[in-house]
Amino acid sequence: MKATDIFQAVKSSFSSQMPSPKIYLDNNATTPLDDRVKTAISDALDLWANPSSNNENALKAAKAILESRNHLAEMFNVKKEDVVFTSGGTESNNWVIEGAIRSARKNGKKPHVVTTNIEHPSILNPLQRRENDGEISVTYVSVNPSTGFVTPASVLQAVTSDTCLVTVMLANNETGVLQPVSEICRMIRNKFKENSPFLHSDVAQAAGKIPVDVKSLGVDAVTVVGHKFYGPRNGALIYNSKSARLPPMLLGGNQESGLRSGTENTPMIVGLGEAARIYNEASSNIESVLTQNRDYFEELLVKRLRNSHLIHFLGSPRLSNTSSVAFLDYPSHGCDLLEKCQTFSASTGAACHKNECSPILKACGISFALASKTVRISFGRSTKLAEIETVVDELVELCSSENK
Amino acid sequence: MKATDIFQAVKSSFSSQMPSPKIYLDNNATTPLDDRVKTAISDALDLWANPSSNNENALKAAKAILESRNHLAEMFNVKKEDVVFTSGGTESNNWVIEGAIRSARKNGKKPHVVTTNIEHPSILNPLQRRENDGEISVTYVSVNPSTGFVTPASVLQAVTSDTCLVTVMLANNETGVLQPVSEICRMIRNKFKENSPFLHSDVAQAAGKIPVDVKSLGVDAVTVVGHKFYGPRNGALIYNSKSARLPPMLLGGNQESGLRSGTENTPMIVGLGEAARIYNEASSNIESVLTQNRDYFEELLVKRLRNSHLIHFLGSPRLSNTSSVAFLDYPSHGCDLLEKCQTFSASTGAACHKNECSPILKACGISFALASKTVRISFGRSTKLAEIETVVDELVELCSSENK
Repeated sequence: MKATDIFQAVKSSFSSQMPSPKIYLDNNATTPLDDRVKTAISDALDLWANPSSNNENALKAAKAILESRNHLAEMFNVKKEDVVFTSGGTESNNWVIEGAIRSARKNGKKPHVVTTNIEHPSILNPLQRRENDGEISVTYVSVNPSTGFVTPASVLQAVTSDTCLVTVMLANNETGVLQPVSEICRMIRNKFKENSPFLHSDVAQAAGKIPVDVKSLGVDAVTVVGHKFYGPRNGALIYNSKSARLPPMLLGGNQESGLRSGTENTPMIVGLGEAARIYNEASSNIESVLTQNRDYFEELLVKRLRNSHLIHFLGSPRLSNTSSVAFLDYPSHGCDLLEKCQTFSASTGAACHKNECSPILKACGISFALASKTVRISFGRSTKLAEIETVVDELVELCSSENK
Repeated sequence: MKATDIFQAVKSSFSSQMPSPKIYLDNNATTPLDDRVKTAISDALDLWANPSSNNENALKAAKAILESRNHLAEMFNVKKEDVVFTSGGTESNNWVIEGAIRSARKNGKKPHVVTTNIEHPSILNPLQRRENDGEISVTYVSVNPSTGFVTPASVLQAVTSDTCLVTVMLANNETGVLQPVSEICRMIRNKFKENSPFLHSDVAQAAGKIPVDVKSLGVDAVTVVGHKFYGPRNGALIYNSKSARLPPMLLGGNQESGLRSGTENTPMIVGLGEAARIYNEASSNIESVLTQNRDYFEELLVKRLRNSHLIHFLGSPRLSNTSSVAFLDYPSHGCDLLEKCQTFSASTGAACHKNECSPILKACGISFALASKTVRISFGRSTKLAEIETVVDELVELCSSENK
């Protein structure tokens, strides 16, 4: 099969997943479930036995969970023992914070955490609560406003001998800008050797769009969630095989090798495994499709809107599917613009209030005036070039008609 | 429709849920998924939109979640605002412990927790870790060995002005013995008034078998999980409308009114709601079916095995579906007995080792000799009287043939 045929096959295999009458360009909020994932989940509803029980059906459920674990392990280049299933990205992120702090408290000093100012709320909010409660100190490294990413040197500078955790996301959900996680890990390990803090990356937005190799990244663990790559809402914390495990957050019946108790949600785990299998099968083509969509959209904007739009961090390494665009001539807010759009749905990073703009864009050093006119367009595996033309037509019309 | 007809209708509506060739008598480990729950989950896989997004499909997902919330609220006699969806019973129990301790730490004293010695590991293990880490002190009130339940007076006696949490399960998963939760709550509130600690009950094993009314119990919150009543693995923490909320354990995107962050697992929530709806529709008949099964089994044992068996805590109030039976004349362990059984599957509370017996039975004051010969039989809504006869036939045969 030629590469172009594979490319077309990938596009058509995802093309039946667009139930909304509007073109769906909000894939960073959540993706549709792949039809094969739906089937896998529905079929796995028959595997209702408790995988810890000692009967035939229990063994079937345990086997299905093992298969999913293998698919996840392949996707992130780890061993199956390194995959710990959780209820989702929020749980994984909260667990990393709770676990790293619990481990660090034992040495008597106040634990210190290093992160960035553009993390997901499931990193920032648990850190801020513990900071407010006086449990920990936190350094929030700012991204460089000209690139949208943190410099490895600025992260390294923030790490001290009291630092128990460094957590830096791989791809920002709003701007799509990739953070230099592997370089950060390399520099920290070079300096602190075996005293390095726990190194974590929330790769929720990157996984299923670009390759995420836990070993090349050099992290100790990554946060993963299925519904960003055509899977269900549950997720995982995935360790580097060489890394020590964090103490569990949820204790009880010692499922997941004692790392995450709770009777296994078999159908959801099977669905997550199927989403990983689908990605493993076609990863490079998936990335090509996403990049082609994004690039075509941005080319059309340049042709049709010229200087009346601005794509944030166009020169930085970015996620293959994400365009963060300010529509400069549109006289009102980005969410007002989206409300008027009839052909597609997308999102902004903030609720639609006069004096609010996305805290992430603000943290990236983007002015209120620009941020408030910004829309996040996030393409999917099934987006068609013709749909992109329809979307751009409408955007051009709204930006010019409103301007008369 | 006559009561007997309703009774038969309830039995036959559950009769298609026995995919195992063996008769399934391990319903306290997990129940099969009701066919209607399966359909509800499968259908809800189409509701993949992020309920927090601002598009048509997102509104549909949010509406389905609201419907589920209403079914849970009806099941536990609370308002819909009192239902907080979680990933399962283990998360709910860990959350209550973490939340109550976090609240209590602010007053500067070491928090104290009161519980029993027969709770589920998802209560005992998180408490023991925090106790070992020096964060809290815990009083484990022992059950009365002649009844299998704690006395309200012994629990009250354990509560001090430093107690931040009292957590007592409603029904023990192994013995089935009901704990006097409402009397415990009444006595604590009478004594401590507005300074009462947070009062929690893990009702995971009781819900869906006997009525659980949060207000009559007098607790502040209960732990619920779907897979003990023909629903999926996810669960909820359900508050009493009059009670203050605990601080969240999982922080992030502020879903569930900020009490439990994480993008909603819509299909599982819909499945949990459907399981609640099914129970609400037929609760009294479900209880009758379960009781009839359990009583018939125990009557047959008395007739056929006479003094060579012992039903633990026969005289105590017990869960309608659970028999904890020691087979006195069987020369080996309960799990050895179960391994020989061809007609049915059930379980014991411990792995099959020579020197091990169920820690719960031990905590109930049952001798090693008795506990090691004990099997837990937990009936389901679909168990038929003829099946019970088959099971008793085999048990009688095994207990006598081994004895020759």
